Amino acid sequence: MKKYIAEMIGTMVLVLMGCGSAVFAGSIAGTVGAGVGTIGVALAFGLSVIAMAYTIGGISGCHINPAITLGVLLSGRMSGKDAGMYMLFQTVGAIIGSAVLFVLVSTGVHEGPTATGSNGFSDGMMWQAFIAEAVFTFIFVLVVLGSTDEKKGAGNMAGLAIGLTLVLVHIVCIPITGTSVNPARSIGPALFQGGEALSQLWLFIVAPFVGAALSSVAWKTIADDKN
Amino acid sequence: MKKYIAEMIGTMVLVLMGCGSAVFAGSIAGTVGAGVGTIGVALAFGLSVIAMAYTIGGISGCHINPAITLGVLLSGRMSGKDAGMYMLFQTVGAIIGSAVLFVLVSTGVHEGPTATGSNGFSDGMMWQAFIAEAVFTFIFVLVVLGSTDEKKGAGNMAGLAIGLTLVLVHIVCIPITGTSVNPARSIGPALFQGGEALSQLWLFIVAPFVGAALSSVAWKTIADDKN
Amino acid sequence: MKKYIAEMIGTMVLVLMGCGSAVFAGSIAGTVGAGVGTIGVALAFGLSVIAMAYTIGGISGCHINPAITLGVLLSGRMSGKDAGMYMLFQTVGAIIGSAVLFVLVSTGVHEGPTATGSNGFSDGMMWQAFIAEAVFTFIFVLVVLGSTDEKKGAGNMAGLAIGLTLVLVHIVCIPITGTSVNPARSIGPALFQGGEALSQLWLFIVAPFVGAALSSVAWKTIADDKN
Amino acid sequence: MKKYIAEMIGTMVLVLMGCGSAVFAGSIAGTVGAGVGTIGVALAFGLSVIAMAYTIGGISGCHINPAITLGVLLSGRMSGKDAGMYMLFQTVGAIIGSAVLFVLVSTGVHEGPTATGSNGFSDGMMWQAFIAEAVFTFIFVLVVLGSTDEKKGAGNMAGLAIGLTLVLVHIVCIPITGTSVNPARSIGPALFQGGEALSQLWLFIVAPFVGAALSSVAWKTIADDKN
Repeated sequence: MKKYIAEMIGTMVLVLMGCGSAVFAGSIAGTVGAGVGTIGVALAFGLSVIAMAYTIGGISGCHINPAITLGVLLSGRMSGKDAGMYMLFQTVGAIIGSAVLFVLVSTGVHEGPTATGSNGFSDGMMWQAFIAEAVFTFIFVLVVLGSTDEKKGAGNMAGLAIGLTLVLVHIVCIPITGTSVNPARSIGPALFQGGEALSQLWLFIVAPFVGAALSSVAWKTIADDKN
Repeated sequence: MKKYIAEMIGTMVLVLMGCGSAVFAGSIAGTVGAGVGTIGVALAFGLSVIAMAYTIGGISGCHINPAITLGVLLSGRMSGKDAGMYMLFQTVGAIIGSAVLFVLVSTGVHEGPTATGSNGFSDGMMWQAFIAEAVFTFIFVLVVLGSTDEKKGAGNMAGLAIGLTLVLVHIVCIPITGTSVNPARSIGPALFQGGEALSQLWLFIVAPFVGAALSSVAWKTIADDKN
Repeated sequence: MKKYIAEMIGTMVLVLMGCGSAVFAGSIAGTVGAGVGTIGVALAFGLSVIAMAYTIGGISGCHINPAITLGVLLSGRMSGKDAGMYMLFQTVGAIIGSAVLFVLVSTGVHEGPTATGSNGFSDGMMWQAFIAEAVFTFIFVLVVLGSTDEKKGAGNMAGLAIGLTLVLVHIVCIPITGTSVNPARSIGPALFQGGEALSQLWLFIVAPFVGAALSSVAWKTIADDKN
Repeated sequence: MKKYIAEMIGTMVLVLMGCGSAVFAGSIAGTVGAGVGTIGVALAFGLSVIAMAYTIGGISGCHINPAITLGVLLSGRMSGKDAGMYMLFQTVGAIIGSAVLFVLVSTGVHEGPTATGSNGFSDGMMWQAFIAEAVFTFIFVLVVLGSTDEKKGAGNMAGLAIGLTLVLVHIVCIPITGTSVNPARSIGPALFQGGEALSQLWLFIVAPFVGAALSSVAWKTIADDKN
């Protein structure tokens, strides 16, 4: 139970801080007190993962992302029951994160391009969005599986490498979809945003899962000791 | 006594460098010699913590923040007497940091949005400020308690994880309050700024302490080995 | 064979993410969803190396750059046959990375200064470009050889140090050539860009190899235990 | 002799890359190919130290700064003869770094606020510059002495902590003096810049040495095991 609650808190922090950076600091970068731009939002998501990896990593492994949990499950490193519970608590945590953000926005003045940090894509860009989310999740989950591998992995550096990879993915993908690569991170804000964020939500669930499944195949292929 | 002086020096560095970045480099970002914007100030506070964590961490544990000291005390990891002395020397260090900054500003020309780096909030935004400071201190101190846990912690990576978490908190919270999550960091500049910085100071003492107290409860809950 | 495939995947990720950041996020920095500027592209290349170093480092050593492979070969740390295969699979991986980027650009609207992230230099700047690419590859490969040295190296920190060095090289060199220091990284985009990118390609193969060869001499000189 | 050559190469890299970022990428930040602003130059200096720390750290300890060498000497960790030779080779390395930069500028078109990256201060700001350089060198060298302490230090994380501290110092101090905290780093560019850079050079030698001497006293005080 403790590890499920840890996953819930970790995903709450990821959504609150990552989306929160877009909501409060996403406007024009420049003076102090103004925004941080795309790099700042990319840093916020990645640093949230680093923060949580070194906090709850010893308790739950710090997935805080159903796509990672799928990749870990398909790699035979966890049970199906645990995977289901992880995904459930991650989604609840994401919704709590979006709720805290909603309270913060409600108690003050808010300006800027988004009030929830929801993901989305423009008309006619669905394939670009799908390919981007699948490919970038493939890369992200491959880093997770590789760097946390018991024999060939990165040891205590894994959390840093994984978080910096999420910064990387956001730098490239924010202009395309805002960057999900994490179904829970998309579900939370979509519930508070409604409209197109809800009708496009399926893509930010399906594409990351496709990418994560491919990662587990790729890692098995190159990490196999037989050859 | 050595560890108290270490806390004093560490907090002096945090306030001088963090607030100093806002004072000297807080104006419009762009050319070299001009400002660094919100990301630069966020980095300055976080890198100050990384710098001090790997310098005085072996002497005092490098709290340099009364909210962290409260969280560590409530987690039963230090004595009440030590906690009181830590808080006292942290506050003295913060005042020295602000004094050095005052001397630097006085001996040169200064332009920009702030001359002290004091915290504050706009009219009618008190609840947003309070919730933000409490929630973000909760997250920050949770990372401190988790990553420095003897059994489940991050080992030698803790200082890096904690400093990067402070960068993260500043990215999100600078547009709201300027970001305190540290009563000593607010007291120093407020004494030199006066006015509203002094009349709002209570919030930057109470809210961080509330957040830190919640952290110690949360960490006990998820780190308990019984379940 | 596994390690060759690992090099292919790693170089694919480097080219897709590094060049992808320039293609999708290279325009004017500022608001979220807009660009990341030179720093963002520099981070994208460097973080790609960090991501891959801690993922495939335990399988192939994560060269993902023919200039690094040359430096390692000349330092007597790998066989000529392996070096040839590494360079071949790196080049194939780079072309795949550029192909995925081409698909992403084709399925959506694209604006910005480049559609491929190819390297190049202006008329009359050939010597500046050659010297820059040779000198910066010298520095980059020297860090690789030094930090991965079994006796005097950086242990598990090597991947981080090498990736951050690539960020550094890009910060200085993007305004000069866009930064190659890696023949495979230049070959992939040049094939899709054509024109001047192809006719200037020789420089981004020769200059990095010259720099890497000098690195192996320099490292032998200062690391020699005899003196 | 090897360690002296290592110090020479390391200081060459620091001056070439740090000052080079100001020369080539120091103009208005924004699009790719344009500048990186104050944060980018701060990163360039700090990442140069990280790069060299994990490359030549095992050979010479990677001081690449006469102020650090003075602090280490006064802390009784090296001989006076070695300290003198370190300072000599650091200065030669800095001049070589500035010479390579001069060649790069000479072989191409150059625009921007500086052609050498020399340090300086405005009329009537001498005391601000002196205090800033002394105080920030004090902080920088204190981190070096603390994080590399055999008993209480940061182990393999020291290089990262020291490099990130140099980023921090540059964020705050670039608007004041351009940031030296390193006599060798000021001497190299001043020789190629001439004029005011030469007539103000004394300050960037004296103030850092004053700060470093204070660091060795401070570290002895707080690290003393007797109390």
